[in-house]
Amino acid sequence: MDGLTLEQIAARLGGELVGDGQAVVQRLRPIATATASDITFLNRDKLRPLLAETAAGAVILPESLRGILPKSGNAIYTRDPYLYYAHLSQWFWQLGQPAFQPGRHHTAQIDPAARVSPDARIEAFAVIEAGAEIAQGVHIGAGCFVGRDAVIGPGCILHPRSSVGWGCRLGARCVLQSGAVIGSDGFGYARDASGAGVKIAQVGIAVLGDDVEVGANSTIDRGALDNTEIGVGVKIDNLVQIAHNVRIGAHTALAGCVGVSGSAEIGAYCFIGGGVGIAGHLSIADGVVIGGMSLVSRSVRQPGMYTGAFPLDTHANWERNAATVRQLHQLRDRIRHLEQYIESLKIEPST
Amino acid sequence: MDGLTLEQIAARLGGELVGDGQAVVQRLRPIATATASDITFLNRDKLRPLLAETAAGAVILPESLRGILPKSGNAIYTRDPYLYYAHLSQWFWQLGQPAFQPGRHHTAQIDPAARVSPDARIEAFAVIEAGAEIAQGVHIGAGCFVGRDAVIGPGCILHPRSSVGWGCRLGARCVLQSGAVIGSDGFGYARDASGAGVKIAQVGIAVLGDDVEVGANSTIDRGALDNTEIGVGVKIDNLVQIAHNVRIGAHTALAGCVGVSGSAEIGAYCFIGGGVGIAGHLSIADGVVIGGMSLVSRSVRQPGMYTGAFPLDTHANWERNAATVRQLHQLRDRIRHLEQYIESLKIEPST
Amino acid sequence: MDGLTLEQIAARLGGELVGDGQAVVQRLRPIATATASDITFLNRDKLRPLLAETAAGAVILPESLRGILPKSGNAIYTRDPYLYYAHLSQWFWQLGQPAFQPGRHHTAQIDPAARVSPDARIEAFAVIEAGAEIAQGVHIGAGCFVGRDAVIGPGCILHPRSSVGWGCRLGARCVLQSGAVIGSDGFGYARDASGAGVKIAQVGIAVLGDDVEVGANSTIDRGALDNTEIGVGVKIDNLVQIAHNVRIGAHTALAGCVGVSGSAEIGAYCFIGGGVGIAGHLSIADGVVIGGMSLVSRSVRQPGMYTGAFPLDTHANWERNAATVRQLHQLRDRIRHLEQYIESLKIEPST
Repeated sequence: MDGLTLEQIAARLGGELVGDGQAVVQRLRPIATATASDITFLNRDKLRPLLAETAAGAVILPESLRGILPKSGNAIYTRDPYLYYAHLSQWFWQLGQPAFQPGRHHTAQIDPAARVSPDARIEAFAVIEAGAEIAQGVHIGAGCFVGRDAVIGPGCILHPRSSVGWGCRLGARCVLQSGAVIGSDGFGYARDASGAGVKIAQVGIAVLGDDVEVGANSTIDRGALDNTEIGVGVKIDNLVQIAHNVRIGAHTALAGCVGVSGSAEIGAYCFIGGGVGIAGHLSIADGVVIGGMSLVSRSVRQPGMYTGAFPLDTHANWERNAATVRQLHQLRDRIRHLEQYIESLKIEPST
Repeated sequence: MDGLTLEQIAARLGGELVGDGQAVVQRLRPIATATASDITFLNRDKLRPLLAETAAGAVILPESLRGILPKSGNAIYTRDPYLYYAHLSQWFWQLGQPAFQPGRHHTAQIDPAARVSPDARIEAFAVIEAGAEIAQGVHIGAGCFVGRDAVIGPGCILHPRSSVGWGCRLGARCVLQSGAVIGSDGFGYARDASGAGVKIAQVGIAVLGDDVEVGANSTIDRGALDNTEIGVGVKIDNLVQIAHNVRIGAHTALAGCVGVSGSAEIGAYCFIGGGVGIAGHLSIADGVVIGGMSLVSRSVRQPGMYTGAFPLDTHANWERNAATVRQLHQLRDRIRHLEQYIESLKIEPST
Repeated sequence: MDGLTLEQIAARLGGELVGDGQAVVQRLRPIATATASDITFLNRDKLRPLLAETAAGAVILPESLRGILPKSGNAIYTRDPYLYYAHLSQWFWQLGQPAFQPGRHHTAQIDPAARVSPDARIEAFAVIEAGAEIAQGVHIGAGCFVGRDAVIGPGCILHPRSSVGWGCRLGARCVLQSGAVIGSDGFGYARDASGAGVKIAQVGIAVLGDDVEVGANSTIDRGALDNTEIGVGVKIDNLVQIAHNVRIGAHTALAGCVGVSGSAEIGAYCFIGGGVGIAGHLSIADGVVIGGMSLVSRSVRQPGMYTGAFPLDTHANWERNAATVRQLHQLRDRIRHLEQYIESLKIEPST
């Protein structure tokens, strides 16, 4: 890799460049470990003390630090260094990648009745069933499965061993990490008179908007009758479960290990913390943040941050406090009785 | 698809048909969106107002609404519309499916020492090891793995990329959703004198009864010495973890993201809510319902509903209340002191 | 299998053998069900009553029981029967296994630019990309994926359908259960001015030390810039999520369904209970035990056991107590007011 000059970077990504525009940087590195051939960035206040020390060849800095320079004398000032870093990281990534080569591995099993763009790339042991559509620029990884009539939009990347069930639809530029499963059957059973479960055929599909990313081994069920719908730009971390008929609004992010129950509706621009559980048939407004490991058991109608998680403590303290939690209702009653008795003592107004 | 007449439906599935028995319905749709060629059903009271408005060609209704008709004039009254819907959904599903074709994809790797029914279907890139038994009517999806000596009962469906480890046994009509893993090693280690883990060979198997369904990317460990046993009709949602030597009684359902620790025993006809954690070496009686995200850390000996989850609140309120939870034991003591002091004031009996 | 004599066992694994050294045992069985041809062990006090009854041909016992013999008259006394059992279980396991046969299944796709030891075994439909290194004694299961430049250390076992992304490194004797994903992209996005996520290229790798085991369908993300690092001997159960740049110290164990957020550091010799969530950018000291389903939202600096989980109760009691939790802060204030009022009554010192 020949690297990029600071001038090249600022020309494409913007920002105010101070210092040597001909300086070449080879890669991005964290501020603590960057060397003279690296560019780095500063976005967390607690890393601020490292700015004076970093050996980085250049530093991306917030506009609020304009005038402050690292030892190298090279800086790019920008409104949002983290966003700048994101764009630059993609650029470096692409520099290090071989050019995208369309083609089909000879072992891939592609049904003759599938429509696969000549500009797509299909790796070994992939299976593409009849009626499936694979758009241009799609990269289907080794061992992936695309079921009949599924649609994979332009520029999607399916990492190895991910799968898309029959009829499901991915918009443009979606990314499935390894092991992700789109379009598994929803968990729907009626109970017969004996109490045995009778499966409800799951005939809806899962529809992912453009720029959705789904984490490793995450699962998104198809709908029962209607569809499961994941909005544009939704980002889903690893080991997340999305049940049938869930709807998620645009640009919402779900961290790892979240479970969303059937028919829940989550708004746009939400952030759902790791390990959160969302009960079924409720709705969450736009712009809601849910703290990690919380259970959302009722609708949340106002934007804002919400949490519900038992605080960590030493096990011994926890044991005592948890026992008391189970008596909390009685404690409240005891306080009320005390208040009433005290009140009864105050025969005369006290002022 | 040519659809079904209401008479055909009532003849096979029962119920009291009112209206035009020759009316043809093409598919099931939700009551809000059904059209004249659809049949729908009503099972949630909050959808009741839609009954007067639905354009559905026919509606499956509870017997309690006998006499009330939708605009189409066509209804089937039945004790349990949801159960009726389940049966009908399977019928429509089968109508839309090509007939089951036995056969073996030429890429499938089937050990000569495996016993595979000629009436089974094996898709591309499946691997069937020596000694495995695949019964009639089984459908092994693309990229599935069936280990040596494993037994797959008649009519099982293994969706693409699911796997069954050596020796494990599935009863009749089990369904594995994509990515499900049956028979991974249990998490068993002794600690040596230095504190390093020494693996305990996991030599038991996992045994699934008839009609078990396992969700996408769920995992069921094999037993350590004895077996892991999943009862008849158990339904397991996505991303559920069942540890070694767990036993689950018939017709119990486990929602998504549940974790069951080693050697736990769960009774029959239980419902374990999403995200629940069940500690090891305990037992849960038949007919127990556990609310979502609860931790079961002791045996539950009586049927009924149990819950343990911190209530969601605004983050600010939660922060204050969570801090107080950590002082709860002291609060209880302070209340007791107040009570004792108040009692000491009451020198004379108050009545 | 011809079994082992007690003398053979004691000669290799140690312990004090009492009884018939020529007695042959065929396998390990639990104490309750062992027969004359089995050896068993006693490690849980509650199983002690079974010692007088067991039909086992021999019993591994703690030294504290020296002098107490089972009916068979054969016992091996050792400091730690569970550890003894672990070693013996591995021995029996190896006896029952065919000898390791190096080789490459003809369907495996191995890039000519991969370096694969002639002493490794590669199963059907495995994919090994260019630059990958597969050391001696490695067993790559059916359908596994090893990305470009990944390194798989000597003696590793990749169970079917597990995968290791580009550049990631496994030490010696690591085990990946089926469906495990090493080296998925971390969950890293900046937000642009419109609130849409902009992906941060994840260019670090995941590095696993020697003797690490990763459970079925667990996921370990690659680092963003730096690496994700899993220490020697770490044991990870099923459905565990390890985010980017996490570091885990030697011999720590994580039970099922744990989620560890980005850049968290967990010490050595910790035990993280099932379903625990660990927030990002915090650190946990060596020797910490976290109880199941707890949320760790701040650093834990002292060894010891910590818990935070709402206690299970009947749903009715829980509902009342949970409602009161939301008023806890006010309850504390009401107690304080009562105390202040009571104090105001005590005009004279009471002693």
